Amino acid sequence: MKTLKIGVIGLGFFGGRHARIYADHPAAELIGVCDADFSRAEEIGAALGAEAFASVEDLLAMPELQAVSICLPDRLHEEVAIACARAGKTILLEKPLAHNGEAARRIVEAVEAANVRLMIGHILRHDPRYVQVYEAAAPELLGNPIHLRAKRNGIRSTARRLGSSSSILFYMGVHDVDAMQWVARSRISSVYARKVEMLGTGNEDALYAVLNFENGAIGNLDYSWAWPDGMMNGFRSAFEIVGTKTAAAMDVTDQGLYFVNDGGTVGGDTHLWPEINGRIAGALADELNHFVQATLAGRDYVQHYREALDAIPVLDALALSAQTGKVVEVNR
Amino acid sequence: MKTLKIGVIGLGFFGGRHARIYADHPAAELIGVCDADFSRAEEIGAALGAEAFASVEDLLAMPELQAVSICLPDRLHEEVAIACARAGKTILLEKPLAHNGEAARRIVEAVEAANVRLMIGHILRHDPRYVQVYEAAAPELLGNPIHLRAKRNGIRSTARRLGSSSSILFYMGVHDVDAMQWVARSRISSVYARKVEMLGTGNEDALYAVLNFENGAIGNLDYSWAWPDGMMNGFRSAFEIVGTKTAAAMDVTDQGLYFVNDGGTVGGDTHLWPEINGRIAGALADELNHFVQATLAGRDYVQHYREALDAIPVLDALALSAQTGKVVEVNR
Amino acid sequence: MKTLKIGVIGLGFFGGRHARIYADHPAAELIGVCDADFSRAEEIGAALGAEAFASVEDLLAMPELQAVSICLPDRLHEEVAIACARAGKTILLEKPLAHNGEAARRIVEAVEAANVRLMIGHILRHDPRYVQVYEAAAPELLGNPIHLRAKRNGIRSTARRLGSSSSILFYMGVHDVDAMQWVARSRISSVYARKVEMLGTGNEDALYAVLNFENGAIGNLDYSWAWPDGMMNGFRSAFEIVGTKTAAAMDVTDQGLYFVNDGGTVGGDTHLWPEINGRIAGALADELNHFVQATLAGRDYVQHYREALDAIPVLDALALSAQTGKVVEVNR
Amino acid sequence: MKTLKIGVIGLGFFGGRHARIYADHPAAELIGVCDADFSRAEEIGAALGAEAFASVEDLLAMPELQAVSICLPDRLHEEVAIACARAGKTILLEKPLAHNGEAARRIVEAVEAANVRLMIGHILRHDPRYVQVYEAAAPELLGNPIHLRAKRNGIRSTARRLGSSSSILFYMGVHDVDAMQWVARSRISSVYARKVEMLGTGNEDALYAVLNFENGAIGNLDYSWAWPDGMMNGFRSAFEIVGTKTAAAMDVTDQGLYFVNDGGTVGGDTHLWPEINGRIAGALADELNHFVQATLAGRDYVQHYREALDAIPVLDALALSAQTGKVVEVNR
Repeated sequence: MKTLKIGVIGLGFFGGRHARIYADHPAAELIGVCDADFSRAEEIGAALGAEAFASVEDLLAMPELQAVSICLPDRLHEEVAIACARAGKTILLEKPLAHNGEAARRIVEAVEAANVRLMIGHILRHDPRYVQVYEAAAPELLGNPIHLRAKRNGIRSTARRLGSSSSILFYMGVHDVDAMQWVARSRISSVYARKVEMLGTGNEDALYAVLNFENGAIGNLDYSWAWPDGMMNGFRSAFEIVGTKTAAAMDVTDQGLYFVNDGGTVGGDTHLWPEINGRIAGALADELNHFVQATLAGRDYVQHYREALDAIPVLDALALSAQTGKVVEVNR
Repeated sequence: MKTLKIGVIGLGFFGGRHARIYADHPAAELIGVCDADFSRAEEIGAALGAEAFASVEDLLAMPELQAVSICLPDRLHEEVAIACARAGKTILLEKPLAHNGEAARRIVEAVEAANVRLMIGHILRHDPRYVQVYEAAAPELLGNPIHLRAKRNGIRSTARRLGSSSSILFYMGVHDVDAMQWVARSRISSVYARKVEMLGTGNEDALYAVLNFENGAIGNLDYSWAWPDGMMNGFRSAFEIVGTKTAAAMDVTDQGLYFVNDGGTVGGDTHLWPEINGRIAGALADELNHFVQATLAGRDYVQHYREALDAIPVLDALALSAQTGKVVEVNR
Repeated sequence: MKTLKIGVIGLGFFGGRHARIYADHPAAELIGVCDADFSRAEEIGAALGAEAFASVEDLLAMPELQAVSICLPDRLHEEVAIACARAGKTILLEKPLAHNGEAARRIVEAVEAANVRLMIGHILRHDPRYVQVYEAAAPELLGNPIHLRAKRNGIRSTARRLGSSSSILFYMGVHDVDAMQWVARSRISSVYARKVEMLGTGNEDALYAVLNFENGAIGNLDYSWAWPDGMMNGFRSAFEIVGTKTAAAMDVTDQGLYFVNDGGTVGGDTHLWPEINGRIAGALADELNHFVQATLAGRDYVQHYREALDAIPVLDALALSAQTGKVVEVNR
Repeated sequence: MKTLKIGVIGLGFFGGRHARIYADHPAAELIGVCDADFSRAEEIGAALGAEAFASVEDLLAMPELQAVSICLPDRLHEEVAIACARAGKTILLEKPLAHNGEAARRIVEAVEAANVRLMIGHILRHDPRYVQVYEAAAPELLGNPIHLRAKRNGIRSTARRLGSSSSILFYMGVHDVDAMQWVARSRISSVYARKVEMLGTGNEDALYAVLNFENGAIGNLDYSWAWPDGMMNGFRSAFEIVGTKTAAAMDVTDQGLYFVNDGGTVGGDTHLWPEINGRIAGALADELNHFVQATLAGRDYVQHYREALDAIPVLDALALSAQTGKVVEVNR
């Protein structure tokens, strides 16, 4: 059978995992890895049997290359995604689509001009908990959405690590803005947000927002990476939607997994990208499997990039509201 | 030893419990119960050995009466509390202090003019979970507050039962506004709130808000009684505060108690007013015990009524913001 | 009104709390405290306004003394309880009744010969979670019990602290043996137990047992104090019973309370003896309140001492089975 | 690339899922499905593009068939597994290996005589929670195992559905016996078990056991399918191991997923075989992926069949102990 010849651009936390998952996938062939840090590319390339590159252009020059995963900081998405589109490659672009609305639209224009395929790495679309909440929120089951809430909280060392290279909205918050519009079957029309910066990490500490949906529902966002580092599992997420008929919720205080020593108790990841029997499993592996198989089969991706694009103007509005202290309309 | 001769005005869900708790308390003597529904007063009076009244004036005319619990709908607090103050009685007034800021201030003026004692029934000040969060949030432990969140969600039959006689803010939300200012050691200065009314209960379905504190922290309120009636325990509350040094949180998805039959699983109350061995225990009993013993001893109550008063203008601001869609300054 | 003049013998973890709770109780008067360590007795006596003693005889010589709490290591229960009975005092005896069946029976004989009242400190009879499980397990609700399980696990530093002065069965396990017979409305007839001692604490690390009830149900005991000290809350308990009609369960992984710093997350006690607003609340306070009020009123205690006595032969059988590796009949 | 030509025998709950997972797998080709109920085979065959059979012999006669999944009731494993082995096919055999020790050994003999490959469907070896507990229990991390516990409880309608066609030990309990020996790195040497049968389902209601390991650790088994059908998620599992250095545990009261309507709250499966975006994901998919890829690559399976075989004598001993009321040595 055919395999998808694929390369990975950006070999940080996510890029390294993308590379391993493709190398393990029976219908994918990882033929190139690219990182500005060439020794990193060499190390991973050697481990996984792929050619190493320090420049995107060189990777894109491989004639047999069919697709790429782009796993770079969001500010670099625009340039690299456009280059990949112009080179005719199918693209899996890690979230967020871009670092602001204009860059996001330029990426989409380039992709459409080049007539290539694009999928955004919105992992929650492959997370069994969020998918089941989405399904339970179908109008015939839920009725009309009344209110919905998303929480994504992490620890302060994450903020310190990222410094000023990203923002809580674009790095972390995009998941839930996308999920909310997806689950509510409605777009966010206006927002009020407040943020705080006290820890001096170079990044926001926390952002709270109230959202208004086109269908009349209200939304609540709770983002933080101000928690002390001892938070169980280093992160907590929750999502709920209440409708006129029924409600659905998920809340992950922990994942039911505990490791105890004399100093304390820590948790473990059982859903996102757990490493099991020498391979990466979980929602990230399912997301990449979907990308590979849908690309090979010419089938639609579960999320059209225009739907992913729909989150970016909301993030822009949240950022503006947090900055000005005013209610802001989402500008699409 | 001395006992506190006490009466209860309003014999609904809370009033009935106040009466039973006083009847069981070694340092209290329940001498009168009053309800507009005289048969209800007679029933409870007979069961607990107290005289029954249909009018507040008649109860207040008992010469030996020293104190009263007022457990009436919030719109009736003003008239009755002022009457009790003028009659020289020590008052335990169930939350909220009143149904709006002006009524609240008039109650406080009457209490101060009559030089009587007043305690507001803010049960969370006696709930071991909220008290321990408050203590963990002491500045020397927490550092400066960065963000804090309170959730209080219940089921729709509660909203239907109350109809238009109260509001989600004054009936339920006052607990958390009071708790937030208490735990944060800071007052809320401005708010943005949105509410929804789709279920046609005569009451709000849900209200979300973002709050700004004088000390720079941000707050998030999540109130709902839109959940379908099958919600575990019929209610869920959560509270968390993250500071520059540490964080503290409580979250009660359930209370670790499950009753299972073929139709489903339900929970039970283990903290608020559980009935154990024929008496009411829990935070409500501890609150009334505090009222009785502090009144008899002439000691301060754990919360001064002026601190309780401080929540009311915030509720007014939240109501106005939810109505107008604007950010509103709290008017003290 | 009358107050109960009471003394406390043994001022360790529990005795210190008994003393504080009585000092705070409106219907009790703490008039004496006794500990072999006289300076400890003096310190507590001074703080709470009670006379200090180093010898039980001297405390018992106080003519106005009506009742005592005995909070000593289980091996000392026999001698002191018999002395208190002979002195005509009403006794609250911390669990376990005694350190073996013979000592337990001698205590009961002395109490009955002296015609004094005796209550055993089985706190679970006042814990809202266990009481509600007991009530849900009434035959008309539960049907016939099929199987029931109790877990009580703690940390290894507890075992080290106790050294060889007690055993996991008598120090900790008695709670659940008593609770199981209470909830099942049936007595345990035979047991098979295994224990392990690897940590060298001077105490058992863990004990597991399968129990047979007279009514045909089976039971499962899970005791440990081998967990590393970083276990959340330092302890975990669970209890469940499944019957032919319904089931009831409680499981306390944590109490929904979290304190987070950079090093980790710890929990807090919200049910047993939390210290709130300067007083000890929770199940221990409710237990002592019951003792005081039932003694003053001449009412039955919620648990007759003969029912508490019923647990001791089971503990003896468990110890024998763990030692011999054989199934052992409970010898009553 | 090569694909594994595979067939599925037995198209019940598991067989139907095996078939779908293979049909979706890029390196597998589902070429035949077999069920005594031919219309069932036809239906699934038509949906998934595989040939339908009513007899195992006919399926095995397909010359290009390389491997089979056997998803039949445990009493039928022996005959069919031996036939598949003699036909030279690689076998994935759903748990338990067989319905007793002799049948299990005969299967292994036939497999070894025919020199074919055999993997047993022990899904917990692919469940991220159990795998991470196994890894945390490595001797250099855990120290020596002191005690370990496994709980697997389900609802009574499961017992009714299975009637007398299987037993709680072989149908459900084998998972945990296998997991315990795997995680403890030690074999169970003797057992004491008790069971109950009150519900009249044709099957056991519950079984409790205490286990002795060769390495001195003790074990506790808690199996039930007596819970009323309203149990959240219809099932609950837990596993923990405490060692001389550290401990690891998992406990799934629910999976953090709640669907609420006016009648109650139910949960959802997020780990075992959730259906996401039209395909089956989770541990079952990971298990079958492992089977396919390891078979094609000629690599070892994560669990050798002899290790799976090791659980069967323990189940036999548990059954005998439950029947006789005696401690029973495991007979290997």
